Amino acid sequence: MANVIHKVNFSNPRSFSTTVKSDLKETFFPDDPFRQFKNETSALRKATKTVQYFLPVFEWLPKYNFKLFRYDILAGITIACLAVPQGISYAKLANLPPILGLYSSFIPPLIYAIFGSSKDIAVGTIASASVLLASVIDQAVSAKDNPTLYLHLVFTATFFTGIFQFALGFFRLGILVDFLSHSTIIGFMSGAATIICLQQLKGMFGLVHFTSKTDVISVLRSVFSQTHYWRWKSALAGVCFLVFLLATKEVKLRKILICGVCRKRRSQVYTALAPTLTVVIGCLVAYFGHADKHGIQIVGPLKKGINPSSIQFLNFDPEYLPYTIKAGIMTGFLALAEGIAIARSFATMKNNQIDGNKEMVAFGMMNLVGSFTSCYLTTGPFSKTAVNYSAGCKTAMSNVVMAVCMMLTLLFIAPAFSYTPLVTLSAIIMAAMLGLIEYEEAYHIYKVWMSAYLGVIFLSMDVGLMISIGLSIIRALICVARPPISNLGNMSNSEMYRDIEQYPSAERVPGVLILQLGSRIYFANCTYVRERISRWMDHEQSIRDSNSADIENIILDMGGVTTIDITGIGMLTEVLKSIERKGINVVLANPKIEVIEKLMLSNVIETIGKDSIFLSVSDAVEACRFNLRSSKKQVDGSDTTNKINKVENSTNDIV
Amino acid sequence: MANVIHKVNFSNPRSFSTTVKSDLKETFFPDDPFRQFKNETSALRKATKTVQYFLPVFEWLPKYNFKLFRYDILAGITIACLAVPQGISYAKLANLPPILGLYSSFIPPLIYAIFGSSKDIAVGTIASASVLLASVIDQAVSAKDNPTLYLHLVFTATFFTGIFQFALGFFRLGILVDFLSHSTIIGFMSGAATIICLQQLKGMFGLVHFTSKTDVISVLRSVFSQTHYWRWKSALAGVCFLVFLLATKEVKLRKILICGVCRKRRSQVYTALAPTLTVVIGCLVAYFGHADKHGIQIVGPLKKGINPSSIQFLNFDPEYLPYTIKAGIMTGFLALAEGIAIARSFATMKNNQIDGNKEMVAFGMMNLVGSFTSCYLTTGPFSKTAVNYSAGCKTAMSNVVMAVCMMLTLLFIAPAFSYTPLVTLSAIIMAAMLGLIEYEEAYHIYKVWMSAYLGVIFLSMDVGLMISIGLSIIRALICVARPPISNLGNMSNSEMYRDIEQYPSAERVPGVLILQLGSRIYFANCTYVRERISRWMDHEQSIRDSNSADIENIILDMGGVTTIDITGIGMLTEVLKSIERKGINVVLANPKIEVIEKLMLSNVIETIGKDSIFLSVSDAVEACRFNLRSSKKQVDGSDTTNKINKVENSTNDIV
Repeated sequence: MANVIHKVNFSNPRSFSTTVKSDLKETFFPDDPFRQFKNETSALRKATKTVQYFLPVFEWLPKYNFKLFRYDILAGITIACLAVPQGISYAKLANLPPILGLYSSFIPPLIYAIFGSSKDIAVGTIASASVLLASVIDQAVSAKDNPTLYLHLVFTATFFTGIFQFALGFFRLGILVDFLSHSTIIGFMSGAATIICLQQLKGMFGLVHFTSKTDVISVLRSVFSQTHYWRWKSALAGVCFLVFLLATKEVKLRKILICGVCRKRRSQVYTALAPTLTVVIGCLVAYFGHADKHGIQIVGPLKKGINPSSIQFLNFDPEYLPYTIKAGIMTGFLALAEGIAIARSFATMKNNQIDGNKEMVAFGMMNLVGSFTSCYLTTGPFSKTAVNYSAGCKTAMSNVVMAVCMMLTLLFIAPAFSYTPLVTLSAIIMAAMLGLIEYEEAYHIYKVWMSAYLGVIFLSMDVGLMISIGLSIIRALICVARPPISNLGNMSNSEMYRDIEQYPSAERVPGVLILQLGSRIYFANCTYVRERISRWMDHEQSIRDSNSADIENIILDMGGVTTIDITGIGMLTEVLKSIERKGINVVLANPKIEVIEKLMLSNVIETIGKDSIFLSVSDAVEACRFNLRSSKKQVDGSDTTNKINKVENSTNDIV
Repeated sequence: MANVIHKVNFSNPRSFSTTVKSDLKETFFPDDPFRQFKNETSALRKATKTVQYFLPVFEWLPKYNFKLFRYDILAGITIACLAVPQGISYAKLANLPPILGLYSSFIPPLIYAIFGSSKDIAVGTIASASVLLASVIDQAVSAKDNPTLYLHLVFTATFFTGIFQFALGFFRLGILVDFLSHSTIIGFMSGAATIICLQQLKGMFGLVHFTSKTDVISVLRSVFSQTHYWRWKSALAGVCFLVFLLATKEVKLRKILICGVCRKRRSQVYTALAPTLTVVIGCLVAYFGHADKHGIQIVGPLKKGINPSSIQFLNFDPEYLPYTIKAGIMTGFLALAEGIAIARSFATMKNNQIDGNKEMVAFGMMNLVGSFTSCYLTTGPFSKTAVNYSAGCKTAMSNVVMAVCMMLTLLFIAPAFSYTPLVTLSAIIMAAMLGLIEYEEAYHIYKVWMSAYLGVIFLSMDVGLMISIGLSIIRALICVARPPISNLGNMSNSEMYRDIEQYPSAERVPGVLILQLGSRIYFANCTYVRERISRWMDHEQSIRDSNSADIENIILDMGGVTTIDITGIGMLTEVLKSIERKGINVVLANPKIEVIEKLMLSNVIETIGKDSIFLSVSDAVEACRFNLRSSKKQVDGSDTTNKINKVENSTNDIV
């Protein structure tokens, strides 16, 4: 059929600079972020595009119109309603003054609107990172004993978060966040949600003293060792609020089931309004019912006025530095993992793409500026973003609208929220967290999920997160350390060679063992590859011994080997030599560009011989067959490579 | 040509237990250690083989004969000659009484002879691990202030090393050692050698006070701030010894160059004898010349008698536990990495195979028993093993011979070595270390090498080692996060499809984009894979726009995808959907067994459609071509998959 014989391309390898450039590009700029203005000729347009790239606000704002604003204003007001109760609640989780929760929903959304490229993200604080932050900073100083220092350390940690996130994005290390796998995140979040729920029993039962530890045993002991302090009025109110909040969620679910998508949006908005309604009811009840006299604790004084500066409070005392840096990096990593995962999944729904590194820069700027203006860690929380999306947001303008709402709240009505009963906040947090414990997903990904989950609930938040990351990395490493190597057979009457295990009808080629190497070959797996090849040889020899000829040829199908490093090349050369010492001929089939290049650069190609490298498995088999035949004719079949060479030439002649 | 159409095998996937069993086997038992006695029928033979497997001494000892012993006794005596000066020197490096170095060459080699499977390894202490041990234990207690406690902590650390190594081997976690890449080890060793050399200036100049830190700056400052204490007689003697030692090495090199391999062995033996000769000369000079009066320090009292028990000295005080465990694990890991790498490379030279996990158990037993008998960390050092090999060792019996020699030394002549001048030891260490700094290898692997090297010399031994391991892991991770995706073209007049970049003659198929995915697809790279696919689409669209038809079909060649995880499946489904939303038809070609299984288990195969999965790229191209033709004939080409289905049926009919 074929009237041209194709040969392996041994022409000069690409230059060192080309390969390094290509490697760097794939590692750090896989999405080719500059392609849009690379081809622009006019300097002005290029400059405009560059500014637009770094400050996405200039991309969407010029095209902004009133029609879009109508959507965004609704979405913005909706998320502002969610931001007030969530902000206060999560600030309490982090042992911070509640007003910080409100501050954190004013400045950071404005910064995000300038630097962020996602259209759906709604900026705010998240529960898991708040608790994590508290648990790490608490190791340095107790929030109760020295609240001022604690607050300053939180600002400092937020500052480090900002620096860390900005640096990750700027140096395009988004690749690191990819290693926090989805299952790990879900496991961690579920664990955090479980602990946070249990911690809310403090607020529910109106307890004053409580453990600062975050493992399930300490928390439960803390709750049940103080039964004589349980306040039943508080608990009753809490249960009522919780039932109300869960009921609105249920309503939403049922509504969606009945009415389909058209109603979904509106019902999501109801869900967003429910916490605000709870807070308002709670405040009214507390104010008019003199709650404090009945043992129901309230939030306490909230000052009027927008964010004061906090830049003078940043504390770089070496004594606390290890804690603030640790808290900053860990919460920053967690916040990035949540924020970017969410930005990506919403973008995919709208068929857009998100540049993870650009988002990191935006998050970093947000937290950096936040740490100067009395905010603590913010990101793109899932709940708020989902509400924003459902409420029909079109651009980041919804964040601006939210920020304006928060500003008005801070300026005029903040003090009213000082009557919010703590039990209301506990109910809001519990309702939010119950939705986060994902049982169904856990079923699919139980292994990773369980380890992260158990680590968080039985040890502590930070250890749990580190275990999760560690396991993700070990999983990734074990994967690369054990590349599959399969035994190929010929699909009858074709030139295709396939895995015999997968296609039992594929037939072994007499006297020839064809092994397909998968994945890349490098230091971490080359011992395994060597051992696996020799095991295949033993195994096949023992199977074939009885019925047919011995193995005289081995073909290594390199089609799946994407690249090889110096250790791998050493291993390959060694394997080839040791097989040949046993009198077996080894050839390679279909090496890829990077493999050929590396083999040529290290001069191993001369050792192997260009004649022992074929473009396809079927070419290699053909050559081996000829070799077998000739070795049967002439008993002294020592100089095999020469013969294969002849085969190639002769086939060329025939053609 | 083909008269049979092969189809993708959609038969029932392997059962869950089969795949788990196979995964576990490949991860932990890749070398199939039990194959040799799996097929034995007689229970006795099976028991014998099992005992032989766990205690390799029973495998080689019954076949042992006098002819082999003749070789081993020579090798054993040679390495014993090396063991005395090295043992004393390295014990000084670890701030331990010099006699411990001799103890460590008596018991551990005997244990290794029972459990070890390598025939070439000569057991002994190593310089880098000695310094690392000292630098970690020194953080807990200073060797000068409390030498007894320091000694006990060293025994405890050795105990933990034993436990750790044994556990790694027993649970078959040898996979972890694979991640300490060759380049990392070399970088670390070179860094350690540099520091150790500089530290020897202390002994050379006869300094009494010296820094306990191991970074280059502290060491150099310590040397040059005490110029007024430099003792010129000591320095002169040191330089003489060093020149002598280096000269014997040079002689060896030149001899090899001139006389070839036959002389190589004998000259290696000379090299081994040179340090002993130096020590003997040093002792004589010190004894008769009253060295201490001239300011030349000597080793000091060495007790007669073999190893006393040290089991009662193991110290599990929680205050020191973090240090002893850290020192135990770090030195254990380093010792394993060196010992196993060396065992493997010598085994490969003799065409044997080494079971890394079994070696770990042997090393673990050696250190465990060592910690009970006044020994500190031992492994298979490169220098001693190379000498053993050159001296012609045949079995582990050479270690037994060395142990007997050491016993005799300890019982009778140990006190004689108490006159050894410290400057002699410094010269021996320097001569050994200068050979370890590998400039040539460093050139090839400069990146990893540099980081490990600089980490060691500018920070500290332990931080340097951790940086090296961390970088090895990051390197492995980055590899898996960026699988190559290449664009395939048809090799004219054949059914082969190859990377267009590699084979510029390969032609693009009109209207069809063929992308070859490499490596496995899973959580750490699926964002990249998605982005890369869309980038290829944009790129190809822009190239093809001008001259030919739009891309209407995309073929994803899955032949290189070894497996896929749940996140990867999610990504793949999403990508397929989003491409199809653009009106482009997507098909898969040649999925491997694990991929097909996972797709079937997660029911994604129904979403994709079995008709969109082909056995080879050329089948897929054929189907897409038909699809193109028919979409041109009938303008409403929406229900494409149906058509491909028809194609298949029709080709079947034709056949």
